[in-house]
Amino acid sequence: MPTNRKEKVMPLEIVLKRNDPAPLYQQIAEQIKRAIASGHLPAGAQLPTVRRLAAEVGVTRLTVQNAYAELQSSGWIESTVGRGTFVSAQASVQPRWSAASGAATPAAVIGDILQMGRGTGILSFASASPDPQLFPEAEFWAALESQRQRLSEAMSYGPAQGDTGLRIELAAHLAERGLSATPDDLLVVAGVSQGVMLAAQALAQPGDSILIEQPTYVGFLHQLRTLGLQPMAVPVDEEGLRLDVVEQMARAHRIRFFYTIPSFQNPTGYCMSHSHRLQLLELAERYGFYIIEDDLYGWLAYDAEPPLPIKALDAADRVIYISGFSKTLAPGVRLGVMAPPSALRDRLIGLRIAADLGSPLLLQWTLAAFLHRGEFRRHLRRVLPVYQERRDALLAALGQAMPPGVHWTRPRGGLCCWVTLPRPVSVGEIPRLALQQGWAVAPGSIFWTNTDGERNLRLCFGGLTVGQLRRGVEVIAEIVRQQLAFAPVTPASPVEWLPMV
Amino acid sequence: MPTNRKEKVMPLEIVLKRNDPAPLYQQIAEQIKRAIASGHLPAGAQLPTVRRLAAEVGVTRLTVQNAYAELQSSGWIESTVGRGTFVSAQASVQPRWSAASGAATPAAVIGDILQMGRGTGILSFASASPDPQLFPEAEFWAALESQRQRLSEAMSYGPAQGDTGLRIELAAHLAERGLSATPDDLLVVAGVSQGVMLAAQALAQPGDSILIEQPTYVGFLHQLRTLGLQPMAVPVDEEGLRLDVVEQMARAHRIRFFYTIPSFQNPTGYCMSHSHRLQLLELAERYGFYIIEDDLYGWLAYDAEPPLPIKALDAADRVIYISGFSKTLAPGVRLGVMAPPSALRDRLIGLRIAADLGSPLLLQWTLAAFLHRGEFRRHLRRVLPVYQERRDALLAALGQAMPPGVHWTRPRGGLCCWVTLPRPVSVGEIPRLALQQGWAVAPGSIFWTNTDGERNLRLCFGGLTVGQLRRGVEVIAEIVRQQLAFAPVTPASPVEWLPMV
Repeated sequence: MPTNRKEKVMPLEIVLKRNDPAPLYQQIAEQIKRAIASGHLPAGAQLPTVRRLAAEVGVTRLTVQNAYAELQSSGWIESTVGRGTFVSAQASVQPRWSAASGAATPAAVIGDILQMGRGTGILSFASASPDPQLFPEAEFWAALESQRQRLSEAMSYGPAQGDTGLRIELAAHLAERGLSATPDDLLVVAGVSQGVMLAAQALAQPGDSILIEQPTYVGFLHQLRTLGLQPMAVPVDEEGLRLDVVEQMARAHRIRFFYTIPSFQNPTGYCMSHSHRLQLLELAERYGFYIIEDDLYGWLAYDAEPPLPIKALDAADRVIYISGFSKTLAPGVRLGVMAPPSALRDRLIGLRIAADLGSPLLLQWTLAAFLHRGEFRRHLRRVLPVYQERRDALLAALGQAMPPGVHWTRPRGGLCCWVTLPRPVSVGEIPRLALQQGWAVAPGSIFWTNTDGERNLRLCFGGLTVGQLRRGVEVIAEIVRQQLAFAPVTPASPVEWLPMV
Repeated sequence: MPTNRKEKVMPLEIVLKRNDPAPLYQQIAEQIKRAIASGHLPAGAQLPTVRRLAAEVGVTRLTVQNAYAELQSSGWIESTVGRGTFVSAQASVQPRWSAASGAATPAAVIGDILQMGRGTGILSFASASPDPQLFPEAEFWAALESQRQRLSEAMSYGPAQGDTGLRIELAAHLAERGLSATPDDLLVVAGVSQGVMLAAQALAQPGDSILIEQPTYVGFLHQLRTLGLQPMAVPVDEEGLRLDVVEQMARAHRIRFFYTIPSFQNPTGYCMSHSHRLQLLELAERYGFYIIEDDLYGWLAYDAEPPLPIKALDAADRVIYISGFSKTLAPGVRLGVMAPPSALRDRLIGLRIAADLGSPLLLQWTLAAFLHRGEFRRHLRRVLPVYQERRDALLAALGQAMPPGVHWTRPRGGLCCWVTLPRPVSVGEIPRLALQQGWAVAPGSIFWTNTDGERNLRLCFGGLTVGQLRRGVEVIAEIVRQQLAFAPVTPASPVEWLPMV
């Protein structure tokens, strides 16, 4: 909504770098975004006309049109025919948490998280992503460049199961996690998300009951809603997974599968003990359910050797193992690997064909070359100490800044720390206030199927420096202190593991 | 199955090029494949041990192991512990048509088609793909290389709806097909297949009735089986789409959507007339069903301007338009575009998040740069005359070689020609015999939901030169002649448009 400032056209200072790899329209859009984010351009402020800005900056009108189109499409500005172009009301409060509105869908929240890290001066605890600054640009580019001579072949259809050369490399890669799989056992997937989706489709029909951890990965909560599956939640706490609840539910219901992130879980950072892994397998065999093991974080162990995946202990072929590169290398590779029981393999390939026919060969070959050259192993050795240091800095800062009664997990790996307040506060209020000060934090509520998450925050430490972590924790701790002082006490319901319907 | 030749280890002549971009293991695997395909290594022939071949060729044992793993994984060889490694029985008859076995699933057939074009000396009429030789390597690489400086950013998560910059380019791209969509209206998808899948998920529940063309794209038949949808088939013949059947079905059933490839259809090459498009829209509006318009081939018009998409005529917001680059540029880009009615947009983005979170930014930015520089338009101008010449050569060769009573379509665009025999022959027999002579042809049966396709073959002409097309048609015509002379006449059932259950 334009405010009363709407009639005044704001002066814009745009500086273009002609030798910048970013297109001109994007440079313009980015600078306008920054002006909005920094408050230079308030909500309702009118932007110059396309013609005028084009003349001022010395670019074509099409370039300015494209910049405005980008800004409009991402909600920063609004255009009204005959009236002009204005900074939109939402833009002034910057990227916003749909979750703060209460009625947010998981899809909207995921969209928020994906957007939160991008530009606009926001520092983000919200996305469990690796630090882009640590991405091994030269090594990855070299692997990509080695495909130059067979580019047109790389642009053809590949097998839906995944390129054989990549699967050979992935079999060796998984051997480092203690898994013995042949290339033929494996499927290449478009990231762990797709792998989990295909596995869920293969194992369950709409209306079927499945088990999840509580809290769990918000993206999976969205997927099971899409698939019409009935989740029953098993609490995960400092003691670990409540195996008694697993058994109780498996005895009472026909459970199709249990979705778990046993190693350095998102959002809690929790790691399932070896003995719990064995007991869970035993329950899966006894009650005939499958285990979907999401091992996206298992490589990131800071205090000891990475834990052995459940799949490595799976004598009875109950585990669909899925891992990928989004947390160790970069999310943009959009490639993961699935090691299913062999009886499920062909059905999963069929589902992959139905989904999208397969992943781009060019990226598959690039990743294969990157793995083949040992670059992944080298990269991992390089980033582990960095994330370890950040984890330590986060825990130290929490210890210094948080008011009494606040607790948090001490993750031995992964990228997530889970903060628990002594009592619930209004959903999304802390993230909303933090965002006003330039910090993005994921509200705990989005990782739960009930209201218990109103006592929680997820702090992801992978993308922030030690200094940023300290400053950010201070800001958040101050907000927490205020909220705890003023927020009304609304006791959460105790039915934490009842089926969500 | 090893034959009696199994004890004799075959000598292998492997020549490695150290400066070849292909890894050594791949060079070895390729040469062994060729030896099998050419008959030098027959079924059951024993291969040297890893140790011996490594010593002979002068590579590490790991390299030979990887080559054998690749060959084993793709079914060319079999290993038995303690006995050795043998050419597998299936490999000797080369890539095989699952469809020829009668019990083939669409997924298996699609796997066949994807594999058929790859290596092994087979010339393929089977895959409706563009000619990889025509891929604009230098121009595409330049677009990719322009992302080098922002590589780590290109490796982060992008918005699930698709990169804004790419959507800006796609809006301009679709304007050339007569569509007026803003970047905000569009979704980037991982190829048309994914777009169709998401649209079907958004519009229908398991058990719902939908309409398809008969024959239609085999991949969609697989998708609807995966989704549990009930297809009802509307015949497409030389007269066009049977609109009377559409209306009859829409009146009798609650139809959720009609999936159509109106422009240069796969597999027939048929093009829906402008007046039929208008009438179909009118039916969609009257009976409340949606139209999923697959416009993958619409750009490839040889005799006149490309037909206006149904979406361009869609005043009542009934059309989900989907197009992509797999037929015009290259399948390996794995990027397409969807223009849905705005009421469906957010639901489709949610489904995309559930499916795989989004497409790789690096490829999205590369395609955006490629489009922005006008390379797509230039490329299309360059390839259209080539495909036109091939289409003409195919039609001329069919006219010269086919026996009387055989008919075929005269496609005015696209990559497919549909051959109809005067009477049915045994499913898959012609493709099987053609494959023995080194030619891949798709059996018509895979594009039908009933047995009528036993009179049909699909000939795709995009990937073959004029000389190859002539030779291939001669081979196939001779097989057709023999089959028609000997094959028993099994009359097809006349229930061609009854619901398939």
